Amino acid sequence: MQNFVFTNPTTIVFGKGQEGQVGALCSELGSRVLILHYGGTFLQDIGLYDGMMASFKEAGLFTMELGGVVSNPQLDLVEEGIRLCRENNIDCLLAVGGGSVIDTAKSIAAGMSVEGDIWDYYTGAKKSEDRYKKALPIGVILTIAAAGSESSPAAVLSKGHEKLMISSPNLIPKFAILNPEFTYGLPAYQTAAGGADIISHLLERYFTQEKHVDLTDRLLEGAIKTMMYILPRVLKDPKNYDYRAEMMWCGTIAHNGILGCGRIEDWASHNIEHELSGAYNITHGAGMAIIFPAWMKYCYKENPARFVQFATRVMDVSIAYDNEEELILEGIKRFEDFLVSVGMPVRLSDAGITDDSKFDEMAHRSMLGGECMGYFKKLYEKDARNILELAK
Amino acid sequence: MQNFVFTNPTTIVFGKGQEGQVGALCSELGSRVLILHYGGTFLQDIGLYDGMMASFKEAGLFTMELGGVVSNPQLDLVEEGIRLCRENNIDCLLAVGGGSVIDTAKSIAAGMSVEGDIWDYYTGAKKSEDRYKKALPIGVILTIAAAGSESSPAAVLSKGHEKLMISSPNLIPKFAILNPEFTYGLPAYQTAAGGADIISHLLERYFTQEKHVDLTDRLLEGAIKTMMYILPRVLKDPKNYDYRAEMMWCGTIAHNGILGCGRIEDWASHNIEHELSGAYNITHGAGMAIIFPAWMKYCYKENPARFVQFATRVMDVSIAYDNEEELILEGIKRFEDFLVSVGMPVRLSDAGITDDSKFDEMAHRSMLGGECMGYFKKLYEKDARNILELAK
Repeated sequence: MQNFVFTNPTTIVFGKGQEGQVGALCSELGSRVLILHYGGTFLQDIGLYDGMMASFKEAGLFTMELGGVVSNPQLDLVEEGIRLCRENNIDCLLAVGGGSVIDTAKSIAAGMSVEGDIWDYYTGAKKSEDRYKKALPIGVILTIAAAGSESSPAAVLSKGHEKLMISSPNLIPKFAILNPEFTYGLPAYQTAAGGADIISHLLERYFTQEKHVDLTDRLLEGAIKTMMYILPRVLKDPKNYDYRAEMMWCGTIAHNGILGCGRIEDWASHNIEHELSGAYNITHGAGMAIIFPAWMKYCYKENPARFVQFATRVMDVSIAYDNEEELILEGIKRFEDFLVSVGMPVRLSDAGITDDSKFDEMAHRSMLGGECMGYFKKLYEKDARNILELAK
Repeated sequence: MQNFVFTNPTTIVFGKGQEGQVGALCSELGSRVLILHYGGTFLQDIGLYDGMMASFKEAGLFTMELGGVVSNPQLDLVEEGIRLCRENNIDCLLAVGGGSVIDTAKSIAAGMSVEGDIWDYYTGAKKSEDRYKKALPIGVILTIAAAGSESSPAAVLSKGHEKLMISSPNLIPKFAILNPEFTYGLPAYQTAAGGADIISHLLERYFTQEKHVDLTDRLLEGAIKTMMYILPRVLKDPKNYDYRAEMMWCGTIAHNGILGCGRIEDWASHNIEHELSGAYNITHGAGMAIIFPAWMKYCYKENPARFVQFATRVMDVSIAYDNEEELILEGIKRFEDFLVSVGMPVRLSDAGITDDSKFDEMAHRSMLGGECMGYFKKLYEKDARNILELAK
């Protein structure tokens, strides 16, 4: 097991009616709040808006709103948010939505703590020496179980087709209100993509070369199995509180860092997928459903024992162990079958992506400026290109 | 799933050599540190003392020491600690040891935040309205994997044979340094009792009547299975870093609150055991190894399905499900067999306790002043008495 430091300050406030606490929770962060959301009537439609604003009024806080966050959120809105914060002496942010809204909030929060253009910190042109220590504090009301950004240090941001990431413990939200009821109206495709995203966060941690991480292996296996049990039920019965609740809590646990302690995680599949959703604007979770099985097929020979463990303990494959390859491939096949069963694409062609002219560029950019990436198997540009080929 | 609030501020600093950070970590809490420990040459013997003091010197902190903490820690030392803190303007505490040292620190920390005698808050005669908000901050260097107190809100304290508890998020340690090497020298019996304690923390959460808590069920099952795998290996090879590391991390995860989210936990067995260790001064984990199997046998009819799940998914029992009782009892038997195999007592007589004259009083006191206790099965005095009988 590797040495590690684990800390996570997010207070999770989970369950029905908890949004009524938002005013009190925000008042611990500041008195002038910028509320970020998708815009339109989404917050009214899910029945959140009136209660939230009443809670703010009761707490006597100043609020203003910035809507218009889109999936794969863009730099422009972040810049507008930073300007609004400066002009209005905002001292905390409330993100109401899923990963894209939370990441927008994190980018604004980080931008308020540094000199100059926040995008320079994403590209690596500049570095925050204090790791964005003066970032504005963030609260969250979560409306999609997927990204896990409500309790994670990372923020992803796009400028045009370029999709990059920053990460710091100082960007972890201070509180997150999780009321599963607000996810009832999420369309089936988005729900399933959220599930695929959650599972991908678990798998990026599961596929490690680190030995003696049995505890976390078992915790990860339990979480993946739960997702595979719960996701089809959520899709069948989208207003079932208990199903939505299991999925929502799993989304947070999968990505709050506790399931990665003591191991080196992989994240190569995420790097490749960020190029996909950057280039084709497909939902991140759907992109992960396409890339992860391809990554598995490309990488399993690097450590067959781990894939045998995945096949037997997670996918319940029961085939004679002396036929190792068949056992492993059956495990991957069952994982793919599961993704298909919940309506996810597992090939680029399933998502209507047939143009491979950008593959070279995508493979190049997935290296994030380095020579290679990934830890389970070290991947070079040609490997990333091969994985995109396998995913056709 | 129940509504819940989860927050845990402890920064876990895990691994070899991490004790070198203690000065820097403490300096974030204050400049005048009271170090609590067992006394004697224990800290020298495990090779911790010199490095720790060098780290304090480097950070330029004032330190003083208070040794003499014993298992089932007593009020006297806590009162002495409070006096020392007041006289020396101490502003943070460092607990170096296991549960008893950490709980002593928590009691001192809490005592510094309230008026009058801290014991009154344990008995319930007085109540801290702000939940010990002004408690001194606590850091930990853990030397025993067992109690989980390094990241929990609870503190147990004894006055004579009376053993009581307080709990508050404000008592959760701010950091905990976990270097598995410092547990190498722990005798086999104490190691096994630590393991039994960790498993008991998992079981108190596992045996719930709450439905739709599948995720946490699976996480708990994974953690229990890991403990059952790792504990015999630690005993066989006590200086194996990886085994000690798995056990140490499991001890923290088991009790930092994350595995209890959304469910009502039981804790009746702990109440009964506190009477045992209060009255007979046996190690808490050994007491739990005696009480938990008896509790299981007494309570399984309350929700057979949960015990079937325990037997099949945790204890790997494979018996036809139409013989439910045999299946359940086989699960409990295998759990008992496991405890015996690691050298734990599973009957009072195994621990040399044959005098049952105190049972009535113990059963009475285990109700903690109420009429009944426990949530999986509501237990009255007569039930606690019956469980003690079953444990003979």
